[in-house]
Amino acid sequence: MNYREVETTGEYLASLEHGADWREEIEALAESVDADAAWFTALGAVQDAELWFYDQAETEYYPVQFDEPLEVASCVGNVSLLDEERFAHTHAVLSRPSGQALAGHLDGGTVWAGEVYLRVFEEPLVREHDDETDLDLWL
Amino acid sequence: MNYREVETTGEYLASLEHGADWREEIEALAESVDADAAWFTALGAVQDAELWFYDQAETEYYPVQFDEPLEVASCVGNVSLLDEERFAHTHAVLSRPSGQALAGHLDGGTVWAGEVYLRVFEEPLVREHDDETDLDLWL
Amino acid sequence: MNYREVETTGEYLASLEHGADWREEIEALAESVDADAAWFTALGAVQDAELWFYDQAETEYYPVQFDEPLEVASCVGNVSLLDEERFAHTHAVLSRPSGQALAGHLDGGTVWAGEVYLRVFEEPLVREHDDETDLDLWL
Repeated sequence: MNYREVETTGEYLASLEHGADWREEIEALAESVDADAAWFTALGAVQDAELWFYDQAETEYYPVQFDEPLEVASCVGNVSLLDEERFAHTHAVLSRPSGQALAGHLDGGTVWAGEVYLRVFEEPLVREHDDETDLDLWL
Repeated sequence: MNYREVETTGEYLASLEHGADWREEIEALAESVDADAAWFTALGAVQDAELWFYDQAETEYYPVQFDEPLEVASCVGNVSLLDEERFAHTHAVLSRPSGQALAGHLDGGTVWAGEVYLRVFEEPLVREHDDETDLDLWL
Repeated sequence: MNYREVETTGEYLASLEHGADWREEIEALAESVDADAAWFTALGAVQDAELWFYDQAETEYYPVQFDEPLEVASCVGNVSLLDEERFAHTHAVLSRPSGQALAGHLDGGTVWAGEVYLRVFEEPLVREHDDETDLDLWL
């Protein structure tokens, strides 16, 4: 395990824009507050969502599209630099009217309403290619 | 997206009371520490739960009741003022003995055991009616 | 509800080691930074997982093993002292390629990749046996 002590430079609450993309809104927040490293948790609802599952044998992501309204029961992620752009690595747990839960890597989704808490850290996080997992990882 | 920088005035760990209501316990914690704005994450177990799903077409919440013991695998939410009362907006992911996950807006549930981390912010968060979503939103 | 105000002594970001155990990695992080009380959220993926469900009638944990790759869509937990050892109480929401979510108390799982944010508190958290729930609880 690799780790780094971090210094928080700011804390933010945000309300995501109805109709915008969930992940792009978090990246826009990071842009607005000049965050090259941050951690967030969030909740809300989306009008649709695209989850990605990482196939560990093929080392490829496979998308699954949900064209239906879903609650965002949990959302955890972080902001880092990937190819010099701010990237919000975003995992989420979604739910249907029955309470049935869906979950995974959230590539995107149309915001119904969203509430986010973001902490920004001083030192940038930079993603680099990791040969073992074929993922872009930080630290 | 709207956002606000926040200043933390206190951080708290809490153990929820066996037999009490999960959301009311978080609101009682907010009351005890005089929080008009806060963010929390939590975990534990409940003896039953009522999840609400927001129907985006009807703009109405519909409840689903689960009369069974469930793990609280994730709980994320925030405290704000709604009609001048402290309200804990609470989303949760619950699970059955098989590992099957249920999730959504947690209106309430009877605590078996619960562990909460709460950060309190200086400036109050106030919910007001939003015409587009028919929800009470802050910011 | 019992609560305690806490003072943060350090904040850390960690990348878990591919092939190691998810919970042991978090405990090793706590060991490295000398944490006797901490709170964490995390995300990533595992190659397999063992979830435990607490049977509230029998007051016993029952394990469910998943021998398959799973996304870690959410992970929330805390570090405390249990029998004088650091223990990472860890709940997680996992997901399958279809997006199907599984969740519960995560005893362990083989890390594919994992990203963790940990806050360390000054005063130790100590778990002691609670007669009502037959669990080891703090506060």
